[in-house]
Amino acid sequence: MSLPVTAADIRAARARISGHCRRTPVIQVRGEDFGLTTGVTMKLELLQHTGSFKPRGAFNNLLSAPADVGKAGVAAASGGNHGIAVAYAARSLGLHATIFVPATVSPVKLAALNELTRHVIVTGGDYDEAQRACADHVRDSGAHEVHPYGVPSTVAGQGTIAVEWDEQTPGLDTVLVAVGGGGLISGLASWWHGSRVDVVGVEPRGSRALHAALEAGGPVDVTVDSVAADSLGPRNVGDLVHRICAQAVSRVVLVDDGDIVRAQAALWRALRLPAEAGGATALAALLSGAYRPRPGERVGVLVCGGNTDPRLLAT
Amino acid sequence: MSLPVTAADIRAARARISGHCRRTPVIQVRGEDFGLTTGVTMKLELLQHTGSFKPRGAFNNLLSAPADVGKAGVAAASGGNHGIAVAYAARSLGLHATIFVPATVSPVKLAALNELTRHVIVTGGDYDEAQRACADHVRDSGAHEVHPYGVPSTVAGQGTIAVEWDEQTPGLDTVLVAVGGGGLISGLASWWHGSRVDVVGVEPRGSRALHAALEAGGPVDVTVDSVAADSLGPRNVGDLVHRICAQAVSRVVLVDDGDIVRAQAALWRALRLPAEAGGATALAALLSGAYRPRPGERVGVLVCGGNTDPRLLAT
Repeated sequence: MSLPVTAADIRAARARISGHCRRTPVIQVRGEDFGLTTGVTMKLELLQHTGSFKPRGAFNNLLSAPADVGKAGVAAASGGNHGIAVAYAARSLGLHATIFVPATVSPVKLAALNELTRHVIVTGGDYDEAQRACADHVRDSGAHEVHPYGVPSTVAGQGTIAVEWDEQTPGLDTVLVAVGGGGLISGLASWWHGSRVDVVGVEPRGSRALHAALEAGGPVDVTVDSVAADSLGPRNVGDLVHRICAQAVSRVVLVDDGDIVRAQAALWRALRLPAEAGGATALAALLSGAYRPRPGERVGVLVCGGNTDPRLLAT
Repeated sequence: MSLPVTAADIRAARARISGHCRRTPVIQVRGEDFGLTTGVTMKLELLQHTGSFKPRGAFNNLLSAPADVGKAGVAAASGGNHGIAVAYAARSLGLHATIFVPATVSPVKLAALNELTRHVIVTGGDYDEAQRACADHVRDSGAHEVHPYGVPSTVAGQGTIAVEWDEQTPGLDTVLVAVGGGGLISGLASWWHGSRVDVVGVEPRGSRALHAALEAGGPVDVTVDSVAADSLGPRNVGDLVHRICAQAVSRVVLVDDGDIVRAQAALWRALRLPAEAGGATALAALLSGAYRPRPGERVGVLVCGGNTDPRLLAT
């Protein structure tokens, strides 16, 4: 069965967002630098504009939206990073953005948002409540909604990471990627579907919306309680992500919050990279042994976000 | 006149340190991300082992030292980063290291040193006093000294950055590089001597040992007082660096401490990179206008160190 987002969609997204998003670098690190028996290639997507991968999807969404989107502005709900990216992309394109974030938004992300737009609405106890407030606003205002993972244009934008990575590191066997709402993994899995590259999702045990959806055979609500909830916080991956991942994701592994915090510390210590909890979650699968590569397996780890309070890195 | 460090020396260094040092990535950034009119390519050498470029020279020095170096151990004086690198390289090679640092060493660097070796000696008010204590120790003990910039093997090791960068970014016109004792710029300038690539040094106005040496026609002492003194602190570049740079460095520009601090903040804000003051000094030349590229000039900026207190990045 064909996927809702195709390689052609992702190639088109890449052309569309070129000039707006950075080609982020990769670095090869030895296993011993992280207490592992095998080296890994990391793609440093935390060096993207706004400190996460999210501008890829936001720009592709806005640049493929109807031409009259500007009139009522754009709107998005977000745990933080998606909202920052939408506000950044909207400002770049001369559009007005209204961003809905939950009260759990981190102070670092809220400060970044407030620098980008005067229309930040803090509402609800988690991402899903902010999403409902955003949906109400969209219905009432006619604003163009940029959904963080539920629409093909956002997913295709995130998939541009995989196109670059294929060029930068040919011959990968496996790519580990953190999952929140699932837009990022859906983009990567859409690109690599049918190829030799296995896409493996990594979720916090306390925020396992994709794991639960694949288990149940369809999107279901989970309870969210994790140190990475401010970036991997959605309760439900929705239909689009489930449909893509059920076909194109090899497996989803779960990690504990302690593993995530250890992976953050390891990235700082061994590489001077300020990953946020969600940005360190993919690496946590290796450090914890939740994912164990075969001997000789060529593994890629996506470091997808760096919007953390640097004061926490000192401890 | 031929240079004391040749392209062949640098190629040999690269083969020698391969497996010990990372190939650090480059990233192309737009001018507008830094308030500039032209984009630049940055080489992210702060992602090297130990958070600075220094392991390249340290490994090349140790791996080309006499075979019996192990008996009395190795020694180095350092503002911090070179000592960390020598301690790291010595540990990797099973050697005993004694490191001399001045009282101005930053707490972050001292902590890193203390994790790598039990033989850290804090002595003297600045790098040059630590260097004298180290020389005394070397004379008394017979230890092998790894000088941070005054010997060809260290310089050739730092030059391996240029080999990589040429492969990663063909067609650069100019490379901006921070100067402390001058080992780094000497390595790069040795590689690019006679090529199309201009190597431009950047020094804090309050720590201008290379600028003064080129002006005087030979190494001279300067007074050191700069926010970057903990990495760019030597008072005198010495004969080897002067000889190389007088022939192979296009020019040296000076920046104020305020420019350096602004460049640090810009690297954090626009790229989530935790550059230390010395690591942001090359970029400061562009932000301050101390170096103004011609239209269309392809400029590279070396971000050479990231050993800073992350708590400072929050402010």
